[in-house]
Amino acid sequence: MKTRVHRFATAAPDDVSPLRRALDEGGINAEKVIAILGKTEGNGCVNDFTRALSTLALTRLFSEVLGLSDEAVAERIALVMSGGTEGGLSPHILVFEVMDEPALSTSPGLAAGVAFTPSFLPEQIGRRAQIDATAQAVREAMARAGIERDEDVHFVQIKCPLLTSARCDEAARRGAAVATTDTYESMAYSRGASALGVALALGEIEPAQLRDAAVCHEFGLYSGRASTSAGIELMRNEILVLGNAPGWDAEFRIGHDVMADALDADAVTRALARVPGDGAGELVALLAKAEPSRNGLIRGHRHIMWDDSDINATRHARALVGGVLAGRTGHTALFVSGGAEHQGPDGGGPLAVITHALIS
Amino acid sequence: MKTRVHRFATAAPDDVSPLRRALDEGGINAEKVIAILGKTEGNGCVNDFTRALSTLALTRLFSEVLGLSDEAVAERIALVMSGGTEGGLSPHILVFEVMDEPALSTSPGLAAGVAFTPSFLPEQIGRRAQIDATAQAVREAMARAGIERDEDVHFVQIKCPLLTSARCDEAARRGAAVATTDTYESMAYSRGASALGVALALGEIEPAQLRDAAVCHEFGLYSGRASTSAGIELMRNEILVLGNAPGWDAEFRIGHDVMADALDADAVTRALARVPGDGAGELVALLAKAEPSRNGLIRGHRHIMWDDSDINATRHARALVGGVLAGRTGHTALFVSGGAEHQGPDGGGPLAVITHALIS
Amino acid sequence: MKTRVHRFATAAPDDVSPLRRALDEGGINAEKVIAILGKTEGNGCVNDFTRALSTLALTRLFSEVLGLSDEAVAERIALVMSGGTEGGLSPHILVFEVMDEPALSTSPGLAAGVAFTPSFLPEQIGRRAQIDATAQAVREAMARAGIERDEDVHFVQIKCPLLTSARCDEAARRGAAVATTDTYESMAYSRGASALGVALALGEIEPAQLRDAAVCHEFGLYSGRASTSAGIELMRNEILVLGNAPGWDAEFRIGHDVMADALDADAVTRALARVPGDGAGELVALLAKAEPSRNGLIRGHRHIMWDDSDINATRHARALVGGVLAGRTGHTALFVSGGAEHQGPDGGGPLAVITHALIS
Amino acid sequence: MKTRVHRFATAAPDDVSPLRRALDEGGINAEKVIAILGKTEGNGCVNDFTRALSTLALTRLFSEVLGLSDEAVAERIALVMSGGTEGGLSPHILVFEVMDEPALSTSPGLAAGVAFTPSFLPEQIGRRAQIDATAQAVREAMARAGIERDEDVHFVQIKCPLLTSARCDEAARRGAAVATTDTYESMAYSRGASALGVALALGEIEPAQLRDAAVCHEFGLYSGRASTSAGIELMRNEILVLGNAPGWDAEFRIGHDVMADALDADAVTRALARVPGDGAGELVALLAKAEPSRNGLIRGHRHIMWDDSDINATRHARALVGGVLAGRTGHTALFVSGGAEHQGPDGGGPLAVITHALIS
Repeated sequence: MKTRVHRFATAAPDDVSPLRRALDEGGINAEKVIAILGKTEGNGCVNDFTRALSTLALTRLFSEVLGLSDEAVAERIALVMSGGTEGGLSPHILVFEVMDEPALSTSPGLAAGVAFTPSFLPEQIGRRAQIDATAQAVREAMARAGIERDEDVHFVQIKCPLLTSARCDEAARRGAAVATTDTYESMAYSRGASALGVALALGEIEPAQLRDAAVCHEFGLYSGRASTSAGIELMRNEILVLGNAPGWDAEFRIGHDVMADALDADAVTRALARVPGDGAGELVALLAKAEPSRNGLIRGHRHIMWDDSDINATRHARALVGGVLAGRTGHTALFVSGGAEHQGPDGGGPLAVITHALIS
Repeated sequence: MKTRVHRFATAAPDDVSPLRRALDEGGINAEKVIAILGKTEGNGCVNDFTRALSTLALTRLFSEVLGLSDEAVAERIALVMSGGTEGGLSPHILVFEVMDEPALSTSPGLAAGVAFTPSFLPEQIGRRAQIDATAQAVREAMARAGIERDEDVHFVQIKCPLLTSARCDEAARRGAAVATTDTYESMAYSRGASALGVALALGEIEPAQLRDAAVCHEFGLYSGRASTSAGIELMRNEILVLGNAPGWDAEFRIGHDVMADALDADAVTRALARVPGDGAGELVALLAKAEPSRNGLIRGHRHIMWDDSDINATRHARALVGGVLAGRTGHTALFVSGGAEHQGPDGGGPLAVITHALIS
Repeated sequence: MKTRVHRFATAAPDDVSPLRRALDEGGINAEKVIAILGKTEGNGCVNDFTRALSTLALTRLFSEVLGLSDEAVAERIALVMSGGTEGGLSPHILVFEVMDEPALSTSPGLAAGVAFTPSFLPEQIGRRAQIDATAQAVREAMARAGIERDEDVHFVQIKCPLLTSARCDEAARRGAAVATTDTYESMAYSRGASALGVALALGEIEPAQLRDAAVCHEFGLYSGRASTSAGIELMRNEILVLGNAPGWDAEFRIGHDVMADALDADAVTRALARVPGDGAGELVALLAKAEPSRNGLIRGHRHIMWDDSDINATRHARALVGGVLAGRTGHTALFVSGGAEHQGPDGGGPLAVITHALIS
Repeated sequence: MKTRVHRFATAAPDDVSPLRRALDEGGINAEKVIAILGKTEGNGCVNDFTRALSTLALTRLFSEVLGLSDEAVAERIALVMSGGTEGGLSPHILVFEVMDEPALSTSPGLAAGVAFTPSFLPEQIGRRAQIDATAQAVREAMARAGIERDEDVHFVQIKCPLLTSARCDEAARRGAAVATTDTYESMAYSRGASALGVALALGEIEPAQLRDAAVCHEFGLYSGRASTSAGIELMRNEILVLGNAPGWDAEFRIGHDVMADALDADAVTRALARVPGDGAGELVALLAKAEPSRNGLIRGHRHIMWDDSDINATRHARALVGGVLAGRTGHTALFVSGGAEHQGPDGGGPLAVITHALIS
């Protein structure tokens, strides 16, 4: 097996032209694409319609190229659009191709697998049901990626739902109580529960520790490898598991670590050090989480992110962490997503690097 | 002579308590304070009233402590409030004390001097009149700082005015045409003209190159040492010149360099290398400029800062550069101000570091 | 007794010049001023510093004119600054003077009284303690206004605190649990508890109905005469009770009604009809509450106010109701404040008009 | 001939379900649809992608139903999405069907015609070329609508382009100078030039008065019947001309007037009075323009719309005028679009009402 990762700049959320060109020219085989992660230029919060626009444009492209309906495309490709490219972050997409070809190397290479949960009812968002369904889907995706050992999973990227006023009302009409009626807050609950599902699947926490009440409250419980991103445009979790496994060609490889706080740029170095093999290669993708520390401090200095009513906290956090990581790596096409509830420690978050070996 | 720089965190724009405590306890001599630079937590754009609130609170404090009227305080202390602490930037003030005491060292130390231009008419903002008045005031401030050689000036921090609808209307009634009627854009014109005034004073450009039309158009003309910040709360330029000069004690020293672009964190290292002496010391203050590159790219990757109608471009830029520099220095109490027109090259800007030698 | 109400446009939050002129010229007696309500041009949410700037400027003015300390001024004058002048709303202040002079008329006239609660601990905000303290202060203010009958109270304007990250942390360190750690949401809790305090004092609800859990949940409980506005710049409630009472001169009078929803402009007509006497007079002040309906609908049509992550819901609501009422009255200097939790029915709110009789 | 206008609420920018239902059930004949106007819930400024999302969803719907390519759909249906539903405005679409059937009445009825200009080069936006091309297209659309007399045109709705950083750069590379490099400002230039094109076509101004320099400067030149709305998603003008003409069935009719300022709700009454016939009927659609008055005043009171760096001026204006008109009409599904440059007098704008006669 072999996973190839292709990064394309986008000129707008519905700009699929570089990807179309690659498909037309045979650089990418549409039938082998299992997931596309995208950073789109909306506000990354509740009313961010760039995610839906990007998803629609990509769906239509693959629908056309594969000769399938939109629904069929949605079932074969996980489209994980994360909104918010604040500060210097550059909008782009990462296309994951998985090919069935013999590995040319013996060292482990990038393994990728996708799975979806069933659709959630509004009242399941941010609760145990979402945690368990996510854990189940993570194990399915690991199986599809041929990853047998939990420790070989390096990064789990999840797209999860959020609650709108309409969805809350619908639940209320059925007599069901949602985790929160605040739509912006629902994103935190959904991200958090999804991350706890990853932690559960990978053995990072004990099942007994998990209860509804833990979500967005017991921040001592977290996954060091989950990256969850909420959006209005879906009602299920879409999960992409990435790791290194034997039997997968090592042209592309992944490493990860955890940012201890928003300024921990050394996490890039530590993550690169954990890429198997000799470490030679160019950085194809960097995925990280960003959130404001809950105590309002960064290394003892006050930050204003929680108290700004004009710019939401996750937007500030993406801009900050984007700057920290761009300053270290020298480039801005970084997949930084906001809201790291139960993803790494408070104020920090998991970080993964995918490298492309010049000689595989 | 000796300049001392004191940095205080602020809990709110009108929080003067740590400074009050230092004045009460004798840690700072109110009569020797010549300037206070502050990063306040407003939007840093037109309707940022945190700058006025901070200025008022500081004015009242010194009025009370010195037994002077507000107007008298305003004439002795340059209050340079720069709004905008986006991302992880931490609100703080930098208090500059200048004491008449013999230098304990022979190596040059931090020299500081303040000067004000006369008040401008609205139609002078962003034009040759503001350039020339600024150059004049820079030379006055250099003289007060005892800095004889242009090259010993390391950083010139300027607070300049902006145009409001009301000020534009007032000029129109007199038949005078302002540089622009767009209030946000007027900040750029004012910052730019002020920076060109610094470049003129320091011999960084030739007088013949300066015309009204150059302001905010000929970006090849710039100062590598100006940092200008606009606000609604004044109609004159207030100028603080900082450098190293013989006869000034070397307990505090300054170095500077220029960020080539928004990601150029190495500018910190280069600036520290240019601090005279053996370089030992703690970083007391870091002052930098931030702006989005005009061509919409950062090292070849698209940024969205100019096209975001929800968050102004200078806000994005401060968050980005704040992250880049905080990631390098490990702390967030950085004086990053937005809008670097004619301050360093497009997308970059001047950067200064003030160090405190543990052994002077 | 006689209450006079003076309205002044403000050119900025710290513009006190028209008021200063009136004080200098004797048009207003500084010693008789008991309250100033202001609409300032900040975002009206957590990080709105225009309220503090306005309060500071007004405090200094009266401190100077009365020869008193700032603290003494704060104890004699309730300064109720409400942020947010979205849409067409025009920044202004309303100055309330209460003079001891015989009423020239027998019909009831505008009666005004002020009272303050003690400062609250963070954990009291949004809870029964705040409700009860408010009710107590309302009764004190009624007594000072000489209003004996509950039904003669037409409008109770309250300024109340909010919770910042710092205040929440402080309580947490003492082991106390706050009503919410979300600073924006704390404004709702504080406004709501304050409004319930008014309802309790005026007999609009039964004490048995009031529990901590009711605040911001049981919206069937509300006052038809409370208008509460939260800010960061105080930790107590400041209360102004307005009504009509015998013994007060009828040159100024008040009437009120309740907007059934955001479009109910007829509430102005109904309120004017409830002004005692023959109704002749000019409209000096109009005070109203604005909030987005919780069910996301206005007369059956969806609104987006709760789902907009770029502009907070109360900002949208003020702009909307400001437009509805400005379209009806023909002018924009309206005291529209946001967040009507427990103030009128969901999506609507109390509305009061103060008229100035041309012949008293 | 007969024009029918159908209004549908939308639950999201890509919600086409009510329209799909009407097409499936035969309530609307897809082949007769000539235009769809939509109010979508983005920021209505530069980075508003809800317009593109809505356009894409509608294009796909008609592509599927008509069995045509997207490009073919785009040529037969004018899709005019206007972003921004601030305050209480409710997202909705207005679908215009034109059927070839004999008029059942002799009085004039709603006539509708669509035309497109060719695509513009960036340097043509906001200039004479755009004015002339628009005038030409307005005359073509009038011809298609069978409207012979200029005075029978009641409303011309136009969708026009804007300039992005990328489009400005592209022109610069060809040595062409754009009207402005500020993307938000380019919307004003584009709207203004388009409105002047309407004025030219309808004889509201003289050709000699039109020069590049007049656009967004000589505001005394304006159309009383143009409504122009800019977006990123197209590079040509799409024009819908609406009027009353003989030979068109009078089941639907239109009237118009001009709001003299933002508070002029009486314009609704005046417009209804100008609907031909006996006036009986329900209000199906109301279309209006909103902008902040340039002098910063509304009936003598200051507004803050031009000086708010957190919320763009057109957003404030839509919220305000939306409130004024919703307060008058009692409903919020109003087509209020922002930016009324050369559309009606400063601070006001054209307003049209479309009525549905209960008895034709």
